[in-house]
Amino acid sequence: MTIDQLIQQIRLKGSCLCVGLDSDITKLPAHLLTEPDPVFEFNKQIIDATHEYCVAYKPNTAFYESNGVSGWESLSKTIAYLKKNYPNHFTIADAKRGDIGNTCHQYAKAFFVNMDFDSVTVAPYMGVDSVQPFLEYENKFVILLALTSNKGAFDFQTLKTENGKMVYENVLKTSLTWTNADRLMFVTGATKAEYLKDIRNIAPKSFLLVPGVGAQGGDLDAVMQNGMNDSVGLLINSSREIIFASTGNDFAEKAKEKAKEVALKMKPYIAR
Amino acid sequence: MTIDQLIQQIRLKGSCLCVGLDSDITKLPAHLLTEPDPVFEFNKQIIDATHEYCVAYKPNTAFYESNGVSGWESLSKTIAYLKKNYPNHFTIADAKRGDIGNTCHQYAKAFFVNMDFDSVTVAPYMGVDSVQPFLEYENKFVILLALTSNKGAFDFQTLKTENGKMVYENVLKTSLTWTNADRLMFVTGATKAEYLKDIRNIAPKSFLLVPGVGAQGGDLDAVMQNGMNDSVGLLINSSREIIFASTGNDFAEKAKEKAKEVALKMKPYIAR
Repeated sequence: MTIDQLIQQIRLKGSCLCVGLDSDITKLPAHLLTEPDPVFEFNKQIIDATHEYCVAYKPNTAFYESNGVSGWESLSKTIAYLKKNYPNHFTIADAKRGDIGNTCHQYAKAFFVNMDFDSVTVAPYMGVDSVQPFLEYENKFVILLALTSNKGAFDFQTLKTENGKMVYENVLKTSLTWTNADRLMFVTGATKAEYLKDIRNIAPKSFLLVPGVGAQGGDLDAVMQNGMNDSVGLLINSSREIIFASTGNDFAEKAKEKAKEVALKMKPYIAR
Repeated sequence: MTIDQLIQQIRLKGSCLCVGLDSDITKLPAHLLTEPDPVFEFNKQIIDATHEYCVAYKPNTAFYESNGVSGWESLSKTIAYLKKNYPNHFTIADAKRGDIGNTCHQYAKAFFVNMDFDSVTVAPYMGVDSVQPFLEYENKFVILLALTSNKGAFDFQTLKTENGKMVYENVLKTSLTWTNADRLMFVTGATKAEYLKDIRNIAPKSFLLVPGVGAQGGDLDAVMQNGMNDSVGLLINSSREIIFASTGNDFAEKAKEKAKEVALKMKPYIAR
């Protein structure tokens, strides 16, 4: 998928919503547990129900790996289902990988070739050669962790360095000088909307993946106001609030309602 | 496995060698490719051949994930084989994971419960709550990336911060204040032997996992001289040099010779 295609979808739908498929098997509706692959069946129904209100899906690999071999199967089936039925949706493997060059090529193969994801989240700690192998794929994207939304983000990401910039600002600035930096996007935590202006200054053109925005919280407005650029430039993720809106037989219907609710809040900002 | 048991094994064998099972399917001896699970068969033979000269095995998950579902099966079978046949060897899932608390618990489950690894490598970028879930398991260990051995290590890890310390020094110092820090070990790149004294000052008691030591290079002596503590405190990894010492029918025999050669160089430092 190209960036232009992604932007077109966002404009078309008036939504930059990404649905996080954190499909924890212990939280699935009970009636699905008799299915041969409950996680895949859950994802399938969530996707079918929500697709018109979102532009992206983001399975977090942890929720699949924790089910062992069968979990990896559920993940493979989910991405295959998305590619076949919803090729206009942007897909994100939220894997937060990162390793030295030789090894990193293997991760790129896993997510970009075997599973054909459009993008993968990557941790920046190991620097350029842990990211570069992912950037070699045309029309594939790296979503690099910059400023995350968790408590621990303040342990190392916001340490001020000698050049007057915080670590995450160095990550943004330095990575944008790497070859194929136009294939970079960044993870920026929503709970820090006040940082978004700063991030936009450093990375005016890049797409930002923003996790941690609750449909209820006022965060969404702050993110839209401070994070958008001329191409919208935002993917706002919501996981549990949508996929586990109900854990009864009506889970897909409730997920659809919740996705619609979030998307409608985005529309006034995106519509021109 | 407890730390004391690990130290005992190191003393017993006069070796702190860790064999890295970076079992790239494209590099396996041709005659194994007709096996139902070539990667597992390769690992099995490598383990049987090298076990008396090493104290640890470290599969890097990237080389398994790149084979999709069957790769995850090879990894599961490898750890099960190790646990059953060589329970005194320390096992490391070189996964470099790291995610927020809720998600991180899933990774801990994947590697510590489903697969029963003794330890997992973790990236520190997301801070305390991305590491803590792994530290809740008794007799399981987190090997936190501190200073890695690749070129990109100098992009962010060595940035000097306001407190006068580099980022990786902050990672060492801060993480040692976390709950269950006695379950922490650190990845420290061998090509930076000059940094090892500094690391030992900050983390005098911790085990260090040192990658990138070639059997040929003089690095090994520098690492033993600067990295050891009273309990040896080192796991020195060698991957390709051992497991791909030959790609012919004699691959296991050659791997054994190479492992023995490295172990013999360690012995004078470890023997008392």
